[in-house]
Amino acid sequence: MTDLPPKPPEFDAAFREQLETLFVWRRDVRHFRTDPVAADLVEGLISQACLSPSVGNSQPWRFVLVEDAVRRREIRDNFVKANEAALGDYEGERAAAYAKLKLSGLDDAPTHLAVFVDKGTERGHGLGRQTMPEVLEYSGVAAVNTLWLAARAAGVGVGWVSIIDPDAVCETLAAPENWRLIAYLCIGYPAAAHRDPELQRAGWQSRGHLKDFLFRR
Amino acid sequence: MTDLPPKPPEFDAAFREQLETLFVWRRDVRHFRTDPVAADLVEGLISQACLSPSVGNSQPWRFVLVEDAVRRREIRDNFVKANEAALGDYEGERAAAYAKLKLSGLDDAPTHLAVFVDKGTERGHGLGRQTMPEVLEYSGVAAVNTLWLAARAAGVGVGWVSIIDPDAVCETLAAPENWRLIAYLCIGYPAAAHRDPELQRAGWQSRGHLKDFLFRR
Repeated sequence: MTDLPPKPPEFDAAFREQLETLFVWRRDVRHFRTDPVAADLVEGLISQACLSPSVGNSQPWRFVLVEDAVRRREIRDNFVKANEAALGDYEGERAAAYAKLKLSGLDDAPTHLAVFVDKGTERGHGLGRQTMPEVLEYSGVAAVNTLWLAARAAGVGVGWVSIIDPDAVCETLAAPENWRLIAYLCIGYPAAAHRDPELQRAGWQSRGHLKDFLFRR
Repeated sequence: MTDLPPKPPEFDAAFREQLETLFVWRRDVRHFRTDPVAADLVEGLISQACLSPSVGNSQPWRFVLVEDAVRRREIRDNFVKANEAALGDYEGERAAAYAKLKLSGLDDAPTHLAVFVDKGTERGHGLGRQTMPEVLEYSGVAAVNTLWLAARAAGVGVGWVSIIDPDAVCETLAAPENWRLIAYLCIGYPAAAHRDPELQRAGWQSRGHLKDFLFRR
């Protein structure tokens, strides 16, 4: 008997519709319940993220579950400091609006996941990185996006904290020298489900239309 | 009558299983059929990509359908030149292996889509970008990943060409000053469906295991 190659899946209209619904309802969550997400569910999300595209099949993503209470407090302080500095960049009404936004769920989210890219990885043998070396980091970003969608499909919320000093995160987490922080993620069950982005509901920034984003040459 | 908020969707186990199948069978495609992908299907994929997360809801993605034959030829020449230079970086068996790889579908793919990020966008009012400004580019990458998944669900293949001089692409496409190239995508119906990455089948780079990618602190 020979091993037959696996039969390619067919995705029907009902699945495509549900997939679009997933895209529509994926949210950047900052309001979490504090009850934990099961460890095997979290690992399953990370496994799915590892199916993401990566340049040269380099798989440069490195996921770090941040479990230590002292380290988590350092990360929270890092965010608070960066957020105060960011507030200082705004004036007048924008500053008042910024001050009212909730920009991270670090206090409540039961799972903290730092996502790095290993800039020194041998995997992929450098393929595809000569003219656009930043695609290594982009591979890590694709993994974050995949994890986000898998999480939402499982009813789990993800919030991306970018208001943070990345070098200090590397120090707090004792990251190896060649690792670069891509994202610091809060993960947990959301306090509420929403169709619209929180920043749109808060009046900070609404959505554009396809004509604003699509061009032809 | 008041407008009730939309009811949040529930994603069941069958959907989650199909979603994982989608992640498993998404491929970087370099072998395309030449028959066109319908314009409204392509626009639908781009619309779905616009549902991706973006820092501060900045929606910095700019999609350019490259339709002009002269411009497409310039892009192809750009790739050929960059690929020859890249080959020069390898020696011995690796160089021989590299030379055998098919690294773009630019000749056959009916649709060429350049994805840029507008570094000068006012949308989002700079929120979330003070300490990690690169998250603006990362938002464009998330859109590429979303488009890729939507495409695969529709039976359409996507190939990401990163072996290309990005500044020359900007010039060829007369991109506005503040735009930065994130990805140049080939889009079309794949010549064949595969479960495993092409670079794995070609013996260039195989996949690692979860233990290589998951850490705790």
